[in-house]
Amino acid sequence: MKDTMKEFFKVIDLDQVAAYITQFPKVGIETVALSQTMGRILADDIIADIDLPDFRRATMDGFAVQGASTFGASEGNPAYLTVKGAVAMGELPTYSIGPGEAVRIATGGMLPQGADSVVMIEHTGTIDETTIEAYRSVAPGQNIIEKGEDYEQGTIVLSAGVKIRPQESGLLAAFGKMHVTVYKQPVIGIISTGDEVVATDTLPGPGQIRDINTFTLSGLVQQSGAKPVSFGIVKDNIDALAQKCTQALSQCDMVLISGGSSVGARDLTIEVLGSLKNTKILFHGISISPGKPTILANAANKAFWGLPGHVVSAMIVYSRVIQPFVEHIGGTAPQSSINLRRQAVLNRNVASAQGRVDFIRVRLLDKEGILWAEPILGKSGLINTMVQADGLIEIGINTEGLEKGTEVEVIPL
Amino acid sequence: MKDTMKEFFKVIDLDQVAAYITQFPKVGIETVALSQTMGRILADDIIADIDLPDFRRATMDGFAVQGASTFGASEGNPAYLTVKGAVAMGELPTYSIGPGEAVRIATGGMLPQGADSVVMIEHTGTIDETTIEAYRSVAPGQNIIEKGEDYEQGTIVLSAGVKIRPQESGLLAAFGKMHVTVYKQPVIGIISTGDEVVATDTLPGPGQIRDINTFTLSGLVQQSGAKPVSFGIVKDNIDALAQKCTQALSQCDMVLISGGSSVGARDLTIEVLGSLKNTKILFHGISISPGKPTILANAANKAFWGLPGHVVSAMIVYSRVIQPFVEHIGGTAPQSSINLRRQAVLNRNVASAQGRVDFIRVRLLDKEGILWAEPILGKSGLINTMVQADGLIEIGINTEGLEKGTEVEVIPL
Repeated sequence: MKDTMKEFFKVIDLDQVAAYITQFPKVGIETVALSQTMGRILADDIIADIDLPDFRRATMDGFAVQGASTFGASEGNPAYLTVKGAVAMGELPTYSIGPGEAVRIATGGMLPQGADSVVMIEHTGTIDETTIEAYRSVAPGQNIIEKGEDYEQGTIVLSAGVKIRPQESGLLAAFGKMHVTVYKQPVIGIISTGDEVVATDTLPGPGQIRDINTFTLSGLVQQSGAKPVSFGIVKDNIDALAQKCTQALSQCDMVLISGGSSVGARDLTIEVLGSLKNTKILFHGISISPGKPTILANAANKAFWGLPGHVVSAMIVYSRVIQPFVEHIGGTAPQSSINLRRQAVLNRNVASAQGRVDFIRVRLLDKEGILWAEPILGKSGLINTMVQADGLIEIGINTEGLEKGTEVEVIPL
Repeated sequence: MKDTMKEFFKVIDLDQVAAYITQFPKVGIETVALSQTMGRILADDIIADIDLPDFRRATMDGFAVQGASTFGASEGNPAYLTVKGAVAMGELPTYSIGPGEAVRIATGGMLPQGADSVVMIEHTGTIDETTIEAYRSVAPGQNIIEKGEDYEQGTIVLSAGVKIRPQESGLLAAFGKMHVTVYKQPVIGIISTGDEVVATDTLPGPGQIRDINTFTLSGLVQQSGAKPVSFGIVKDNIDALAQKCTQALSQCDMVLISGGSSVGARDLTIEVLGSLKNTKILFHGISISPGKPTILANAANKAFWGLPGHVVSAMIVYSRVIQPFVEHIGGTAPQSSINLRRQAVLNRNVASAQGRVDFIRVRLLDKEGILWAEPILGKSGLINTMVQADGLIEIGINTEGLEKGTEVEVIPL
């Protein structure tokens, strides 16, 4: 046992883990219909091929004018304007506007030649069929959107690596991109191991438990924008495990093997990884809790992870360690978004060991206008602690613990 | 124009809008495979039909013992224990444990009869084939999970109305729920209107713009866990619009009609809604900016929304006003989760009008350890302001504005 134990403590820290990300190449690209792009990662820069908008638009209902025709206008001293007609929506105006002239226009209408602004309808009065008075002056450019004011032709409007939200989807529509080139969704293989683990549709016998990790990990993979593929449950047997790993690697961009929280099962995973072609173990052990016995191997340029079997540990390792690898191979640009800090106040003391990063599950309580984070202390084999949890707090490697009343940042779960 | 203008100002506030939510019935339910439940809303309570776990499990590698056999043990004065054998994973142990006895066990193994705790392997030494010494004492219950410690048989483990996250999915797996009854995803019809709006795959002529709102709204609907159905673009014509609205209502659980930022177009929407069977307009106008000219009708118990045509206004109204209605009809329990407050510091003054709630788009900047929220000021017809935005801040109805340096809560976009 002694040798195995020693090996167990060859741990690296989270920064060292992150340095391995760039070893793994991005997945390929594909072209999808615009309606299917939500949450996908853009693979090409998008360049404006027209001005947006491509013409001067009214942003208010009223009268298109030359601003100068209204200068000095007030309730007591209105400007009188000759109405030449009305702009039809979606059509080229047939009028042009000179000093003292106006054309009726609705929001979104195209400004006629010569007009540079819109007087709001609320600031006008009708004198007769062809004459209005304006009670306020408008400056040139007022109540209109200029041609190219949203985006100018020739500029990069979206960069490769951006995650497509509803607004990016709308922007692609504005430029008529009915098909969009995006990164493929990484395919992530999931293998559960353990002689005590039985399929979810089985009634567990004495000493057996149903497979939970396949479902928690599949859910997390989906949340990362990737596609989970389950390879079922493998017994703790080197040949069976090696065969399943080879199969998963041939079909997937990354593989997660969970289970093996016992030292023997963990050693088995290491042995199997050692036996695979073109595979190098990068580390086994991270200075975090829970999640310390995590293994990463580079298997022919695919990341192959060994996760602890305890459900809480496996979930936290995925969220805090593996997800950035999935995002990287899925084409997400580094730091493409700033994470919002979600703060709460700790409602009791939390102990932590120095020399490792501790992730503490918390429940949020809204009391008297303060958002409290209540630590959920419980064994990492209990899924109820994750079901109760709203988030995680991270206690740094050099921090001994946090006192009640400390403002903490909460990572949502 | 005067009459229309008056009507325009019959506005209600956000709390009054929220009171209409319960008018609209929930959609039906359906049964889906466990692997398809991520993000879905549970329709039934889930009751534990077995204890979880269903037996006492070891949480460490070591030896199952009676804690009392180790009391007082130390490095200098170890407890000697007779090893009777080993527990096979996933099987009923064939041994029982008495005082002074031990059985080798791995993490996840079932404790034998008589054992109440596990001595960690690191705290033991081997004397001979059948004898070990333990250097530390363990209390009964230490290093084990009790039968039913995660969930006890007969208890409600998940309540109807809960959104299924990866951990809930794992919990359903633990109880063998291969099929789960969830609410159907609400089907939300989307209609774009405007004589100036052309299809996304069309090159806009003079005065025309491509349809953006269908795509931004579809994306937002998807983010809400619902299914968007596009009904295309309708011209500002009462018969065409009435026909399209009737069609959308017959196929969908809710309908969004966008466009019509001009007063004339808005009046047309109101006229069409007034002409539909069993339809009552609930309000037209909300005291928010942007988004004031928002209409809600109850059309035979389905919510029918008229949204402003400006892209930014339509998106903000969906996010801040309509989404809770979608969640309600989709079965989400009220206040099923506490929203985390995401804070940042305003980096410049922002003006706001009293008597309405202002939603200001902000970009987040991380500078010298402070997360700054920088207001993006721009017309609500410009989609670039939403593409640049990381979130929104809400300025209350009785607040005149916010000063630089104010801590603000950011609603992510």
